[in-house]
Amino acid sequence: MLKEELVLKDKLQEYKNIVDENLLKFIPDEAPKTLVKSMEYSLSAGGKRIRPILLLMVCDEYSIPRDISLPIAVSIEYIHTYSLIHDDLPAMDDDDYRRGKLTNHKVFGEAMAILAGDGLLTHAFSIVASIDSLDPNKKNKIIKLLSDFSGPSGMIKGQVLDMENEGKIVTEDKLIEIHNNKTGKLLLAPLLIASVLCDFTQKQLNGIKGYGKCLGLTFQITDDILDFCGKFEETGKPIGSDEQNNKATYVTIYGLNKARELALKYASQGSKYLEESQLVIPYLNKIINYLVDRKG
Amino acid sequence: MLKEELVLKDKLQEYKNIVDENLLKFIPDEAPKTLVKSMEYSLSAGGKRIRPILLLMVCDEYSIPRDISLPIAVSIEYIHTYSLIHDDLPAMDDDDYRRGKLTNHKVFGEAMAILAGDGLLTHAFSIVASIDSLDPNKKNKIIKLLSDFSGPSGMIKGQVLDMENEGKIVTEDKLIEIHNNKTGKLLLAPLLIASVLCDFTQKQLNGIKGYGKCLGLTFQITDDILDFCGKFEETGKPIGSDEQNNKATYVTIYGLNKARELALKYASQGSKYLEESQLVIPYLNKIINYLVDRKG
Repeated sequence: MLKEELVLKDKLQEYKNIVDENLLKFIPDEAPKTLVKSMEYSLSAGGKRIRPILLLMVCDEYSIPRDISLPIAVSIEYIHTYSLIHDDLPAMDDDDYRRGKLTNHKVFGEAMAILAGDGLLTHAFSIVASIDSLDPNKKNKIIKLLSDFSGPSGMIKGQVLDMENEGKIVTEDKLIEIHNNKTGKLLLAPLLIASVLCDFTQKQLNGIKGYGKCLGLTFQITDDILDFCGKFEETGKPIGSDEQNNKATYVTIYGLNKARELALKYASQGSKYLEESQLVIPYLNKIINYLVDRKG
Repeated sequence: MLKEELVLKDKLQEYKNIVDENLLKFIPDEAPKTLVKSMEYSLSAGGKRIRPILLLMVCDEYSIPRDISLPIAVSIEYIHTYSLIHDDLPAMDDDDYRRGKLTNHKVFGEAMAILAGDGLLTHAFSIVASIDSLDPNKKNKIIKLLSDFSGPSGMIKGQVLDMENEGKIVTEDKLIEIHNNKTGKLLLAPLLIASVLCDFTQKQLNGIKGYGKCLGLTFQITDDILDFCGKFEETGKPIGSDEQNNKATYVTIYGLNKARELALKYASQGSKYLEESQLVIPYLNKIINYLVDRKG
C-alpha cells in the first residue's frame, strides 16, 4: 500500500470514529425504548460513513465549527440509514443481511423497522433545525437541500426508477439517471450543504457539483463490481444479489472490464472538476481515486 | 340541526375545499409518475382535513397571508397522509380499506406505498423550507415543531406505544399517553405552529396548548366510539376493527356511556382553556363541541 493511501485510510478512520461516537447522541430522550433500540441497531451496524465524512472534510478545511457541521453530518447519516432499513424490507429488496449483520426487520420485525426508518428520517430535520449557532437562512437552505435530495425528486425517485426497471434492458442514460438519484443525490447533498456553510462562489459550487456527480457514479460502479465479484466477508452482502434481483447494473450491462474503465473515467473526470474550479480540498481528490480500488 | 352548527359545517366545508384544491399543487414536478399517482391517490382519498383547517382558521383570524399559512397547512396534511399509508400496511394494521376506498398498498403494492409515504413525509419539510416570504427564524421553529411532533418522541412514539400495548390491559394514564402522542401531537402541531406565526403571548400559547390537548382526546374518544358503533358508509372503515386488532380503546376500557361522558368532559375543558386565555377564535370553540356529536 502506498504511503499516501495509508494517510487517507487513517484520515477516513479518524473521521469515521468521530461520526460513530456522535451518531447515537442525537436520538431524542423521550422516544420509546424499543424504537430507540431499533434505530440504534441500524445506526450502529457499521458502514463507511462516507456521506458525513465528505461534509466534515470540506467543512474542516474551511474552519466551520464542529457544533454546526457535526449535527448536519449526523442528520445525513440518519437519512441514509432510514433508506437502508426501508430498502431491505420484504416488500422492497427483501434482504436478510446487510454488512454481515441481520437487517433491521429480521431483528425487530417489519412494523418496528418501518417505524424506525420513519423516525430516523423525521428526526433528521429536527437535528438540523435545532442548531442554534447556525444562521437561520443557511439552516433553511440546508433543510431544503436535505429534503429535496432525499425526497420524491431525489433519492426516492431513484428507488422508484430502479424498481420500475427491474428485469428490463436499460440504456446507459437510464442507468445513470437511476444512480444519479438513488445513490448520487445523497452523496451530492453533503457537498452542496458544505458549499452553503463555506460560502462557496458559483465557480466553486459548479466544481464541487461536477465532482459530486462523478463521485456518485464511481461509487455506484464499484458497488456493482463488488456485488458481482466481492467476497461476503468484505462487503457483508450476499454475492450476486443484484443479479438474483434481476437488476440492471454496470457489470451486467457492460461486463466487468468496461465497468472498471468507466469507474476510472468518472474518477478522473471528478478530479478535473476540482482542479478547474480551484477548490483546494486535497482529501476529496484522494477519496475518488481511492474508491476505484475499494474492496468493501 | 341548529343554525350555528350549519354555519360551522359550511365554514368547515369552505376550508376543506381550499385544502383539497391545493394539496396536489405542491408535489414536485420531477417526481416519477407512478410515485406521483400513489401519493396523489392517498392525498385525494378524502378525509376531514381537520389539521390544516385548524391552522388556517387560526391564521386567518390573525390575518396571516395565505401564501404563508397554506403551504404549511398542506405540509401537515402530507405528514398525516404518510402516517395513514404506513399505518395501513400489512406489517402494521393490515387494513384493506380507508374512508371506503382501497388502501394505498392494495392499489399500488407495498413497495410503492412505503415509498409514497416516505416521499410525502420528506417533501413536507421542503414545502415549508420553500416559503420565501416567511421569516427564517419562524420557519426553523415551525420545521422543528413539525419534526418533533411527528417524530420518535411524537406521533411515531404513539404508534409504537399503541403496538406495544395491543392485547394488554392498559391504565387510563397509559391510554392518554398513547393518544396524546399518536393522534394528539399532530392535532396540536397546527395550533402551535399558528401560535408561532401569530406571535401569541405565553398566556395565549398555554391556552391553545391546553385546548389542543383536549381537542386531541375528544377526537380520539369519538373515533373509538365511531369505530365501535359507527356505520361503514359514514366512516369508511370496517366496524369494530379496533376490537379485532385487540386494541385498547376508550370504549373497550370504559364502555360506551363513560366514553361519551369523557368526550364531553374534554370538550368542555377545551372551551375553558380558550376562555381563560382570552383567545377569541370563535370557530375553535365550536369545533370541539361539534366533534363530540360527529358521525364520521
